[in-house]
Parts: sequence; structure tokens; C-alpha cells
Amino acid sequence: MGQDGRKEAGVNPLWGGRFAEGPSAIMDRLNPSIDFDRRLARQDVRGSQAHAAMLVAQGILTPEDGRAIHAGLSTVLAEIEAGTFVFKRELEDIHMNVEARLAELIGEAAGRLHTARSRNDQVATDVRLWVRDTLDGLDDALKALQAALIDQAERHAATVMPGFTHLQPAQPVTFGHHLLAYVEMFGRDRGRARDARRRMNECPLGAAALAGTTFPIDRRATARALGFDRPAANSMDAVADRDFVVEFLAVAALASVHLSRLAEELVMWTSPAFGFVAVPEPLTTGSSIMPQKRNPDAAELVRGKAGRVLGALVAVATMLKGLPMTFNKDMQDDKEPLFDAADTLMLCVPAMTAMIAGLKADAAAMRAACARGHLTATDLADWLVREAGLPFRRAHHAVGSLVRLAEERGVALDALPLDAMRAVEPAITEKARAALALDAAVAGRTSEGGTAPARVAEAARAARRRFLEEGP
Amino acid sequence: MGQDGRKEAGVNPLWGGRFAEGPSAIMDRLNPSIDFDRRLARQDVRGSQAHAAMLVAQGILTPEDGRAIHAGLSTVLAEIEAGTFVFKRELEDIHMNVEARLAELIGEAAGRLHTARSRNDQVATDVRLWVRDTLDGLDDALKALQAALIDQAERHAATVMPGFTHLQPAQPVTFGHHLLAYVEMFGRDRGRARDARRRMNECPLGAAALAGTTFPIDRRATARALGFDRPAANSMDAVADRDFVVEFLAVAALASVHLSRLAEELVMWTSPAFGFVAVPEPLTTGSSIMPQKRNPDAAELVRGKAGRVLGALVAVATMLKGLPMTFNKDMQDDKEPLFDAADTLMLCVPAMTAMIAGLKADAAAMRAACARGHLTATDLADWLVREAGLPFRRAHHAVGSLVRLAEERGVALDALPLDAMRAVEPAITEKARAALALDAAVAGRTSEGGTAPARVAEAARAARRRFLEEGP
Amino acid sequence: MGQDGRKEAGVNPLWGGRFAEGPSAIMDRLNPSIDFDRRLARQDVRGSQAHAAMLVAQGILTPEDGRAIHAGLSTVLAEIEAGTFVFKRELEDIHMNVEARLAELIGEAAGRLHTARSRNDQVATDVRLWVRDTLDGLDDALKALQAALIDQAERHAATVMPGFTHLQPAQPVTFGHHLLAYVEMFGRDRGRARDARRRMNECPLGAAALAGTTFPIDRRATARALGFDRPAANSMDAVADRDFVVEFLAVAALASVHLSRLAEELVMWTSPAFGFVAVPEPLTTGSSIMPQKRNPDAAELVRGKAGRVLGALVAVATMLKGLPMTFNKDMQDDKEPLFDAADTLMLCVPAMTAMIAGLKADAAAMRAACARGHLTATDLADWLVREAGLPFRRAHHAVGSLVRLAEERGVALDALPLDAMRAVEPAITEKARAALALDAAVAGRTSEGGTAPARVAEAARAARRRFLEEGP
Amino acid sequence: MGQDGRKEAGVNPLWGGRFAEGPSAIMDRLNPSIDFDRRLARQDVRGSQAHAAMLVAQGILTPEDGRAIHAGLSTVLAEIEAGTFVFKRELEDIHMNVEARLAELIGEAAGRLHTARSRNDQVATDVRLWVRDTLDGLDDALKALQAALIDQAERHAATVMPGFTHLQPAQPVTFGHHLLAYVEMFGRDRGRARDARRRMNECPLGAAALAGTTFPIDRRATARALGFDRPAANSMDAVADRDFVVEFLAVAALASVHLSRLAEELVMWTSPAFGFVAVPEPLTTGSSIMPQKRNPDAAELVRGKAGRVLGALVAVATMLKGLPMTFNKDMQDDKEPLFDAADTLMLCVPAMTAMIAGLKADAAAMRAACARGHLTATDLADWLVREAGLPFRRAHHAVGSLVRLAEERGVALDALPLDAMRAVEPAITEKARAALALDAAVAGRTSEGGTAPARVAEAARAARRRFLEEGP
Repeated sequence: MGQDGRKEAGVNPLWGGRFAEGPSAIMDRLNPSIDFDRRLARQDVRGSQAHAAMLVAQGILTPEDGRAIHAGLSTVLAEIEAGTFVFKRELEDIHMNVEARLAELIGEAAGRLHTARSRNDQVATDVRLWVRDTLDGLDDALKALQAALIDQAERHAATVMPGFTHLQPAQPVTFGHHLLAYVEMFGRDRGRARDARRRMNECPLGAAALAGTTFPIDRRATARALGFDRPAANSMDAVADRDFVVEFLAVAALASVHLSRLAEELVMWTSPAFGFVAVPEPLTTGSSIMPQKRNPDAAELVRGKAGRVLGALVAVATMLKGLPMTFNKDMQDDKEPLFDAADTLMLCVPAMTAMIAGLKADAAAMRAACARGHLTATDLADWLVREAGLPFRRAHHAVGSLVRLAEERGVALDALPLDAMRAVEPAITEKARAALALDAAVAGRTSEGGTAPARVAEAARAARRRFLEEGP
Repeated sequence: MGQDGRKEAGVNPLWGGRFAEGPSAIMDRLNPSIDFDRRLARQDVRGSQAHAAMLVAQGILTPEDGRAIHAGLSTVLAEIEAGTFVFKRELEDIHMNVEARLAELIGEAAGRLHTARSRNDQVATDVRLWVRDTLDGLDDALKALQAALIDQAERHAATVMPGFTHLQPAQPVTFGHHLLAYVEMFGRDRGRARDARRRMNECPLGAAALAGTTFPIDRRATARALGFDRPAANSMDAVADRDFVVEFLAVAALASVHLSRLAEELVMWTSPAFGFVAVPEPLTTGSSIMPQKRNPDAAELVRGKAGRVLGALVAVATMLKGLPMTFNKDMQDDKEPLFDAADTLMLCVPAMTAMIAGLKADAAAMRAACARGHLTATDLADWLVREAGLPFRRAHHAVGSLVRLAEERGVALDALPLDAMRAVEPAITEKARAALALDAAVAGRTSEGGTAPARVAEAARAARRRFLEEGP
Repeated sequence: MGQDGRKEAGVNPLWGGRFAEGPSAIMDRLNPSIDFDRRLARQDVRGSQAHAAMLVAQGILTPEDGRAIHAGLSTVLAEIEAGTFVFKRELEDIHMNVEARLAELIGEAAGRLHTARSRNDQVATDVRLWVRDTLDGLDDALKALQAALIDQAERHAATVMPGFTHLQPAQPVTFGHHLLAYVEMFGRDRGRARDARRRMNECPLGAAALAGTTFPIDRRATARALGFDRPAANSMDAVADRDFVVEFLAVAALASVHLSRLAEELVMWTSPAFGFVAVPEPLTTGSSIMPQKRNPDAAELVRGKAGRVLGALVAVATMLKGLPMTFNKDMQDDKEPLFDAADTLMLCVPAMTAMIAGLKADAAAMRAACARGHLTATDLADWLVREAGLPFRRAHHAVGSLVRLAEERGVALDALPLDAMRAVEPAITEKARAALALDAAVAGRTSEGGTAPARVAEAARAARRRFLEEGP
Repeated sequence: MGQDGRKEAGVNPLWGGRFAEGPSAIMDRLNPSIDFDRRLARQDVRGSQAHAAMLVAQGILTPEDGRAIHAGLSTVLAEIEAGTFVFKRELEDIHMNVEARLAELIGEAAGRLHTARSRNDQVATDVRLWVRDTLDGLDDALKALQAALIDQAERHAATVMPGFTHLQPAQPVTFGHHLLAYVEMFGRDRGRARDARRRMNECPLGAAALAGTTFPIDRRATARALGFDRPAANSMDAVADRDFVVEFLAVAALASVHLSRLAEELVMWTSPAFGFVAVPEPLTTGSSIMPQKRNPDAAELVRGKAGRVLGALVAVATMLKGLPMTFNKDMQDDKEPLFDAADTLMLCVPAMTAMIAGLKADAAAMRAACARGHLTATDLADWLVREAGLPFRRAHHAVGSLVRLAEERGVALDALPLDAMRAVEPAITEKARAALALDAAVAGRTSEGGTAPARVAEAARAARRRFLEEGP
């Protein structure tokens, strides 16, 4: 390589070998999906066993063939799970790998398994089964995260901290109240996952290549055997549909955005500027050069990975855009974004759960931060409305003037002398100043869903019931 | 401008004026939302009326003030709907525009309306009401599209056309069957819209700025009055949540992808290479230079706009990524992508409905196209399995050889002499050749959800019941 | 509307009118682009005048017709700029609106203007001219932002603040150094804009519909007259290409990401937790409910709008995905995302410039923040390597132990007694402790591009020369 | 698992094990990057060797240590390339894996390598080197694709086919002309890659953690040794910058969109409806169920993967959005999208090259398709303008009437009798009808960049010179 990094005549060090390949060699790298769709092995075997059982029940296969197929497939799966199965790229995908091995094990009967079926309905079934399991796993994971949040919320139902809008101190809230906001978000994520699961729980098997089949199959039997609610209604849709992948990715992307918001807060709160919390040390790392560092790596990784899951959604939606009926090979590219997004989320949710479960809140630092920003100014305005009968806009204006006065004097609002206050708004009394006390302000927000500690404790109990006991 | 198009010293013709502005002038262009959030006027007035009625019922406002506010707001809305309302950018947003006009109309009482409320919970409520109405509108629009598709499907339950995979002729299907695939897709879109509606039907009012309020409000009453199922459970979540916008956009993006697939087919089918259909002439245009052109503009526009709706989803998800609690001004940018996506979809769905409703199918062209591609090869293979007992893989292999033979001879598969066929696979009989007949092949695919005309007619009836009569 | 907000039988309040429309009414809403492409009026007229002049020069138009066309077009543009032009939706787009008005003004000669041209090459030319002007405007805007950053960097070349990694205090830097990082980013953005401009500066005119023309035109003359570097080389590419829109959007998206990073810092720095800076009050707003609030709205809006510009890029890229040659109507949807992204950026860059230009740094708060986080720990480790000859890894380890000791004792690292230090690492001397002094640490980082104030002052001067005087 | 597929009490089959993990186990899965950043091994070793050489030259390391480090690193790289290196997840990343092995090989001197360096500048350097090599590889790959296109364009400079707009036949073009449109697109992609390479060719080394270093390093020496044009100007930017990843992904995304357009055409052209071309059989596949199928899988995969590359761009841009200075751990997620997009593109470009190089065009089918759609209508209109002096708009109108007449009679435009033509437009003569001849129409479009075969041949030669001989 020359001084400017320009490659000299000859082969690019990273990519150079690629240009001498013939079409077959390129296709061998481009076409096979076995490197990633092997993750569908369990689903593929399970689907084939259900299909074979139905063929036997319908008299399309003999019971002997059915038994041989069932046993052979079980052997195949055992080999895969034991790690002794030899995957072959020349067999392209998981379906052909499994079937080829089945043929080695049981001979000609293996060739009867693909009766009344196509890879198009087969792969659609496999992916659905995988997504269904993943939605269940996501529900478990989010529930565990909610449980950790609710535990902390109960612990901190009365721990006062600044509530922020625009990252400016706005009004005091309790830390428990803040955490319960996330319980709602993840509750909605679980609801979306549940809806997606219910909607996608239809069985494509029997659609065959695209048009159905001339064999007298029983699609309801196969659907039932695989835990589906019903067969997919239209055979062309059944093989062309990847809605369930897109819907999963949309659910995942929004959950990831929620995680990124909480992660951002953890990153800020563990910075000394805030110092509100510490996350468990195993979820932080040091620096290769700065000996004093303790970095919130897990939180940062969770925050950043929202981009990745959104990218997966864009990838699959853009891939599907403008595709005519029915199956097109483009759709093979649904799986890697799906797997990557699922893996990412199933890593980030437990990581967040561990951070929340092990989080130590510094109640003193939170309370100290409430001294900045005149957090209870609204309470004085509300007092003027409620007790002195001022229109809200006038009360708001008066308190605004008092805040400016306090800023000029460099004191907190509640440190202004009563005289100075009354010079601005005569309706203010000594009693009014009680509204400026931090704990009174928090305790006073008793409206439903509000931050009064009693309300927060009640909300935490309700959240436990709604989300952990009754389900989403 | 110089010869290379470089601007000469001085002012950029498009953008030049912008750099002399002071911060106030810039803020006047950046900050106000009134140019777009005026679309929320009806929702804003409705929410304020419900809030005021509750304040009266709770004794926080006097009945007199309540009556004045209600009447004044009705006047404001009437002015807006009549186009006589003067929107002012210096009042920033719809909320302040409405309230300021209310103050002109009813005086000081207007200042009491904002008691126990903030713009944070107010705008969250307005946008939810708008999205809810839009989800209802989308459901109507998609239902009308399904109706048009079902009508055509019934008409063409037995119209034979090539079914494609990989855009290669695969097996014959009926045009009705093909159209019913889209009925399923749009049915799922409606299901997603309904789930989104149910999930987002919670009232933020009473969350105030973020922490609830010290006034003795009745959140259930306001929620009920506005048709919400319940108050939002957590006040901080209530003002920080834009899930319902993201979920709407995800629903919209997937529906747009579905539309793009159907639009792609219309573009191809109206090309002379296919010539399968004609769309109503008003939905096509001519060319400024080529006098013979008839372009499927509406279909192309619908296809392309899938990108735009996906872009809106990316815009809002990316905007929310990493935002700490609770309201941040970034969130003002939820509205333009939302409005644009909703407008786009509410334009594209009716356009597609009009194309489908007025579509003329050329059954002869569809049937003629079935002559290409040996569409019934699978049927011969299936016959060999079903009637002659061959394993599927062997039957598949034999028919593959026959196809190659037909290609070499330049004839269709069913034009091969029986002798030639039997030389390849002795199990083939004269009867087997009947499997190669187009109509027999279509009629034979009687599996549930399959393309046999009787099945398609039945499926169209079922679709009518499931989607048009019973709801999604 | 019923109690649950469900629409009752009848018309949806927002969208209801839409379903009674016939195909023509729908097309009238879907197809015309005049509502947005009127922004291309100046470019359209300019392109037509250049085209007409070339037709005259080539003897294809008579000089009389040429003069009439030129004058008529000038009148049309004057009307548009004066706001007296009546745009008609039934004429669809800016091209037909202009030409129709020209015909009113000059009669039959107007019909000769479209000779050897199509709307396909015409719109491609118009949009290129618009993007070119916008790239120039963006360059101006980014240069002004760089100027504001460099001014502040010179002012604060020696103002010490904590440098962060992972939002944890890492090493002390100067505020000027920090700001110059952004000068580099925006400098790269300008470089990308310049490259995009150079690449796209090719003239599509003469490509006609897609295949060129049979008229003896002179494409070089038109290109030259419009400031293009050359005619586009291939007529089909010329009308099918929207690379320049995508490349502009990619440039805009990355610039927006840079803006979002700086905006995030402004939001954090103006929060009392940091309190490092104040932005000009006109670029902040108050709260409708919290009288004490001063919210950094401009910074938040700039931060959030990165999503919007990225969304525009996704919109156009997805729209183009899979489009066959040459012009397809889908491509009409390039313009609204383009205009929106350009408007957004041309609003955000000046807003950021105003924030930076008017920013007041609180040097005392910045210095005070350096007391947290043992910022100079690396310096002690470096001293041990440099002066005492320890391998870096061992020095790093020793200082890590000292930090833990300081944390246990609740003191800053430099407050540990020498004895305690030497008990951990005997190589430490009194001189070593000098390395822990904040100003010494900053001043010592004299490596090229480092944070030593002298280096920063030098870098600011260099930046002024590189970016403001010599161009990007 | 129950009948509805609901998991029973107990462990989720896919994800179940994940919830019993403690924070350390989760972090072990979340944090390490060694599973993917091992691809940077060569770059990492090369960067370290350059750094060590500079430290020796500056007297910071002894020559003995320098020699030991250089030799040790060479051994490490040899082990990695031989596949004998044992990567350890507990060492997190490639940097620590290499350094730890170096310490095993050479002892304490290894600990001196990290002097005046941090992982922050180290990883930034490694990734830049990798992207630079990849941009060079991409340039090679795109050049090979252009060569294949130019070869075919020369072969088919005079092969007439329908040119399409809106997928409707518009005007006849030559196949060579069509292919040269893509040569322009990929030429722009190469230009973008070259610009990106030039812009990113700056060396971060010496930025250390973020602030530079107190050691007397020579950044220019390191930059030079690694082929960089210069050191990065600002140390904070140097470690915070991932522009070069985003810019690479933007280049990649647009190139992928171009590939998707060509792929879409190949998919359509290989469908029997068009039948214009055949791609090499190794780049197609059969069907598991339909024996007659020959599917254009490679083209479909290339088309679909545009989504994936765009998704990678969204992933990284969204990850970076709103990140404060300087390095944040989120940025670790730049690498997997980068690698995936690069791998995808470096697979798709050669696949497309193989398809184009081996493509067989069916000139007869292309010519036959020109019979549909009155492709030469424009030529008649142009004749009326050019030879008979009609204004273009009137000529256009007349030919439109003739097309309608031909459609009514079910004949081609040139089959209308002269009388019938003259009844519509008297200016039409026998000579005018010559304009309707296909080959005359093609040959007549001699404008620069037009489709006349002589022009196409000339354009192919020019393309060969511009893109294959002179560079992009």
C-alpha cells in the first residue's frame, strides 16, 4: 500500500479475492440461508411432524411411512440439538438440510413428506412459530422488567426528586412515580406483543406453493397440532405475508425507544452532575487510560441499540415495498433483521432489568437537587387560585414576578420575605408560603395518577395487580 | 449568478435573507406550531369544554364561569370552522390562540379555564382525540377498499390467470383468489388500527404539567365526557407518551406497504407486456410529449408513497429515541409527520378503492398468459404421487425432465405425445394428461383457502361476513 | 359520537367526506403537484428561457418566437413573484401552469416552447437548479455557524471544563476545544455539500422524454446558460436519476445529527445540574403553568428535527427502491421530503448559530464541575510513565488504587497525603502531585489537536483560515 | 406447549434461560465486542505497529521495546490469520485481546505500547482503516460491474427495445443505451466513494482518550505511516466522530438502490411476459414443488437487500442522534451495521456483475415488444413540428387523435391509411409516415446522450475511457 493508503496494483487486502469468482461461486455465497435459518430447526421439525401426522390421518401417507418420518425427524432434531448435525451449504436452507438427512436415515419415505407442501408454506410456518415463541419470551422479559420497576417504585414511593420537563426542574415528584411511568410504557409494549401474537397465530401450511393443493388435506388438524388458532384464510396471502415480521419489529422498535429513554436517564443520573443513582458495578466498566472512570456501558449500549432495532424495521419494510404476489426471493431477507432485532431486545430488556433491580438511589442527592429551580412555584400559583380566588393566569403572572425577584436576590423562592412577596401580590399570606414546602407540594398532588406518595404507593399496588398478576 | 451556477458575492436567491435575522426572528419561525396544530382546533375546544364542565361539577369553577367558557369556546370553534378566526403566530399554538380569543370574548373568566391543567396534558389530549378520529376514518376507508376487492373477487371467482412466485408463472389461480389475498392484508391492517385505538383510548387530562394537581379534580368524569375508556394511569407517562403516534404510524406504514404491493401489480398489469387489467381513465394521465401514452399515475403515486409513510415513522421514532422524562419540546415534531402520513394514507386508500372498483379485467389476456410457463406441471407431479404412488421427490424429478423435453421441442407440456412422456416416466397414462388441463388444475385445488372457484366464491362470502358485516 | 368515542352511524368528523368521491375527484387531490412544485417557479422559467434561446440559436425557433417567449416568461415570473399569478390545480404542475399562462400572454408561439423537450427533462432540470441553490444556501448557513463557534472558541480557548466520555468526567479540556470539535463536523458537512454540488451539476435538458430528440439541439449551450458544468451523459439516466435528491438528503441528515449532538449538550448545559451556559432568552420559552421555567425550546427543536430529516431520506430512498427505468410517477414524491428537509435544516442551522453566537458561558460553574471525578488521574499515570519509567499498564493500575482510596476517604485525588500515595506506589513524589493540578493538566496536553490553551488558540486561528477564508 | 401454542408454566423454549442470569452474566453477553470487532485485527496490529514506531522515534520507547513490540505484534497477526489465535470474551475487544497476547509473548514491554494512546483513538483508527480498504474494494467491484455493463452496451448498441416511462412503452431505445444509464449511476456511486475516502483519510491516533496527551508524540509521523493524509485536527472530534461510517452507509445505500432498480428490471425481463433476457443459470434456482420453474433468485436477493443497507444507515444515524461529546459506548454499535452493509454490498455488486456479464439478450423479443404501444408517435409529432412547422402542442394533439383512431381500429399507428391520417391532420404526407418506422425513429435521436446507435456506440467508448481507464 502506498503512502496515502491507496492500494497499489494488485489485490485489495480486505476484499480482493472476490472478483475472480464465477457465477456459481457467487451464488454459493449469496443464495444459501442455512447459516442463519438453522435457527429454525426446531420449528421446521415440529411443523413437518404435524404435517406428516395429518397426511397419515387423511390417508395420504401410510401409517408406516408416518411413523418412520416422525421418528426420523426426531433423530434429526436430536442431532441438531446435540451439535452433531452437519449442515451443508449446498443444500441451501434448513428445510433441505433436514429432509436430506431424513432421507439418509429412513430412505424413500422421506420423499413423501413434501407431499401437499412447498417450501413456501413451510418457511412461512417455521418463521411464525419462531416469532410466536419470541413474542412469548419478550412478554416474560418485559414482565420481569416491570416487576423490577414496581419493586423500586414501592421502595421509593415517597423519595422526592425533581420532576423535569425540557430537562429543566419543573415540579417535585417521587422517584417511585417516575419509575411507574416506565411500567406503563412497558405495559403497552406487552399489549402490542400480545395483539401481534393473536393476529399472527394462523397456520400457512396447506397453502403449498401459492394456490393450495389437490390433495385432500385437513388444514385445521395441522393448525391445531401446532397451536395455531386457525388456518390462514387465503393460500396466496399465506405464502406472501410477512406482516407478522414487520409487526414484531414495530413492537420491538417502540420497546427499544422506551428502553433508550430510561437508559438516557440512567446515563445522566449516574453522571456526577446529577448523582441520583448508581447501577450495579458489573454493568459498568472502567477505562483503558483513565484510572478513575466508572462508565455506565450497559445503559449506553441499551440506549444506542434502539437505532439498530429501528433499522431492522426499515430493512424489512423497505424490502417488502412494491413486491408483487406471491413469494419472492427478496423475502429471504426477513430473517436476519428479525433474528438480530430479537436477539438485541432479548439482551437489552434483561440488561435493563438487572440495572433497575440493582439500582441504588441516592435520596439525599435527589432532595438536594430540588433546591435548584424553584420547583414549587406552581404550588404557590395554585394556592392563589384555590384559596384567594385569583384567575389562574393572574396567579401565574404574579408568581413569575416573584421568581424573578428571587433570582435577582440569589435566593430560593421560599426564602423571600413575606413583605417582598406581598408587594408583588397582596393576596399572599404566611399560609401561602406553606405551599412552597417541598414535601407539602408533593403530598398535595393527590389527583388520580398524581405524585402524592399515597397515590404512588396505591399505583404501585395497582400496577402489580394489572401487570404481574392479571397479565397485560 | 456566474457561468458555473456559483452564486456571486451577495445574496443566495433562495435562502439569502435568512442570515441577517436576530434570534427573535429565528425563534418566530422555529417555535410556533400554529401553522400546523390549528388542525387540532376542534379537539382543543372539545377538550377544554369537558375540562371546564368537570371543574364546575367539582366546585372549582362557578357555574357562571363554566357557562361563559362553554359558550365562548363554541363561538371560537364556530369562527374557526367559518374561516373567520385570525390565527396569530405570536400566540405560538392552537391552545393559546383559542384561549386568547376566549379572553376577548368573555373576559377574565377565560383565565380560569387553565386551572388544574397544563399545555402538556392539553396537547396530549388533543392529539389523542385526533388520532382516534383518524383511526376510525382509516377503518372506514380500508373497509371500503375491502368491499371493492370482494366485489371484484366475486365477479372473478373463476377467472383464470397465472399465479406468480418470483414473478415467474407458477400455478394457475383465479383473479378473485388473488384479490382476496389483499382482503386479508387490509383486514389485518384494520385489526391493528382497532388494537391501537383501544390501547390509546386513555385520557391524559389531569396530569397537568407532569405531576398531577392539587385541585380536587375528577379525571374519570373528563375521560368519560371525551369518550375515553379511562384516565391515563401515571401523570408523568401521560405527558411524555407519544406511543399512540408511533403505533399509528407503524399501522400506517404497513398498510402503505400493502398498498404498494397492489399498486405494483396494477402498474405491471396495465403494461402491455401483461395487459391483464385497465384502471379507470380518470386515474391515469397522458404525456406532455408522447401522444399515445396512458400512464397509471394513481397506482404509481400510491406505490411510491409507502416510502413517505415509512419516513414519517422513522422521523418520530428517531425523535423520541433517548428523550428523558417527561415532556420535551422535541415532541412538538410529532404532529407534522403524523398529519402527513394520515393525509397520505387517507388519499391513497380511496385512490386504490377507486382503481379496484373501476378495474376492468381482461379475462382473455389472463388466460392467454397461462399458456406460458407450464403452469400445470405441479398437477402432473401431484397426480403421479396421488394416483401412481410415486414419492413426491421422484415425481417432481420426472416432471422436471418432461418440462425440459417440452422446452427443447418448443411446445407446451401438455402437447408432448404420451409416448414421449412414458419414456421418461412409465407411470404416466392418458388420464394423467388430464391433470395438465388448465381448468381442471384450478378446479382441483380445493384445499381450504385454495384457488378452486368454488372455494374462492365461498371465501369471498366469508370475507364479506368477516370484514364488512361483523367488523374486523 | 358515543360515550366510548366510537363514531356513531354516519360521517367521521375528520375524514368522512372522502368516501363519496368519484375517481376524478380523488385524482384531483392525488395527482396535482402544483401545491408544492410552485416553489420551482423561478427555476422553471429560467430553464425555459435557456431552452428557448438555444432553440433560436439552432434555428429551430424563429427569433421572433424566441423574443416573445422570453418576454412572456419574464412576465409570468414577475406575476408569480408579485403574488398575482393564479395557480390552477387542473393544470397539475408548475410547468403546465407557466406554459398555459404564457399562451394567454403570447398566443400560439407558446406552443413552440415545448419543442425538443418533455416534462421529464424539464422537472429534472428544475429540481437540480433548486437543489444547487439550496446547497449554496446550506454552505452559507453552515459557514455562519462555524464562524460563531470559532468566535466563541477563541474567547474560551483557556476556559477549563470537564471533558466527558460516557457522560462521565474524563479529563479537563477547554470550552474552546470542545466547540472546535463541532467546527470540524460542520466543516465535513460543508465538504459533503460541495461534493454533492459538483457531482449533480449536470444538465438533463435535451434528454426529452427519455431517449433524446430528433431536433438538432445544442445541449452544451443550454447547460452553459444554466451554469451547469456539462450535459448529463445518458438521456435515460437524465430523466430517471434522483441521486442528487438522495445525496442532498444524506448530507442534510448527517448535518442534522451533528446539530442534534450540539443541541443535546445545550439542553444539558442549561439544566441547573450542569449550569455551564445560558442561551439567549429569545431562544427559550416559559411554561403555561410553571412560572419559574425557562426552557431551551430552540435547542430541543433542533435536536428533535434530526429525526425528521432522516425520515425524509428514508422516504425518498424507499420510494426509489426497485423502480425500473426511466421516469415513474412515484418520483413526484421526491419534492415534498426534499423541501421539508431543506426548510428544516435552513431553520435549524441559523437557530443554532443564534444560540452559539449569543451563548454565555459560566466559567466558574465549569471549573467547579472539574472538582468532581478526579479528572487529572490520567496525568498522574502519565507522569509515572514519563518521569518514573513505569509501564503504562502498571501506572494505570496504581492510580486506580489511589482513586479508590480517595473515594473511601471522600476526598479529591490531589488531597491524599503523599505518604498514603507512596504506600500505594513508591515512585510518586511531591513533584508528581503537581501533575494533578487542573491548569497544569490542561496546559500539558500540547500534542497536535490537543486541549492545551495555546494549541486551542492556534487551532481556532487555523479553523478561521481553513473554513472562513479559504472555503471548505 | 398448550393447544393454542401458549407456553405452559415454565420455561420458554427459545428464550427461557435468560432470566435467571445475574448482572455479570448479562454483561458478559452485552458488553464484549470481540465476536465482531475481531475483523479489525489486521488494522489493529498495523495501527499499533505504527504507534510504537513513532514512540521509539520520539524517544518515548526504547528501540529494544519497539523491536519487541513490532515482532510480537507480527506474531499475533500471524496467529490470527492462521486461525490459531484464541479470542477471549473476557478480554472484551480486539484491542485487549491483541495486547494481552502480546504481553504473553514479550512480557512487560507490552504494557508500554498503550502509552500516549487510548482505546478511543485506537478503535477510531482501526475502523477508519477498515472503511478505507472497503471503499477501495467497493470501487473495484463497481468498476467491474461498469465494465460488464459497457461490454454489453457495446454489443447491443443497436439492439432496439421499448423504452419505458411509467412502465408503459414510450419511445424505442437501444438496449445498450438502457444499460449505459446504469453505468452513469454506478459511476456516481464510485465518485461518492472516492469523496468519502478522501474526506475520512485523517488519523485519530494521538487524540488519546479525548484531550490529546502530555507525551511529545509526532502525530504526523503516525498518520503518514498509516497512509492517512493528515492527523485529525481536533482530539475530541477525533474520538467522537463516526461520520465516515454514516457517509459510507449513505454511499452504500444509494448504490444498493441502484442495484435494486437494475435487479427489478432483470426480474421483469426474465418473466415470460417480457422475455427480454436470460441470466446465467447458476444465478437462478428451481422450485421444491414446481418442476418447471427457473427463478431469478440472485436478482431478487439483490433487489431486496437495498432495504437491509438502508436499515443499517438508519441504525447508525439514529444511534448517533443526540449523543453528547465525546465517546459514548453506544458507538460500539457502529460496527455490526457497517460490516453487514459492506458484506451485503460486496456480495450484491459481484452478483450483479455476474448476471450482467452472462446475460443473454433476446433481440427478437425486444423488437417484437416494440409493436405494442405506438412507440414512434412522438416521431410523427416531431416531424409535424420540424417539417410542417406546426407548434408542438398542436402536433401533439393531432397525433393523439390518430392514436385513438388506431386503437379503435385495432391496428398499429403506422398501419393507418394516409387518407385517414390526413383527415385528422392535412399536413401529414407519405414522407411523414417514414417517421413511424422503428429503426428510423431510433436512428434519428442523435442529440448528445441520445439513443441513436451511433451515439450509443460513442457513449460506450466514452464510458470506457471515463470509468475504466481514467478512474471515476
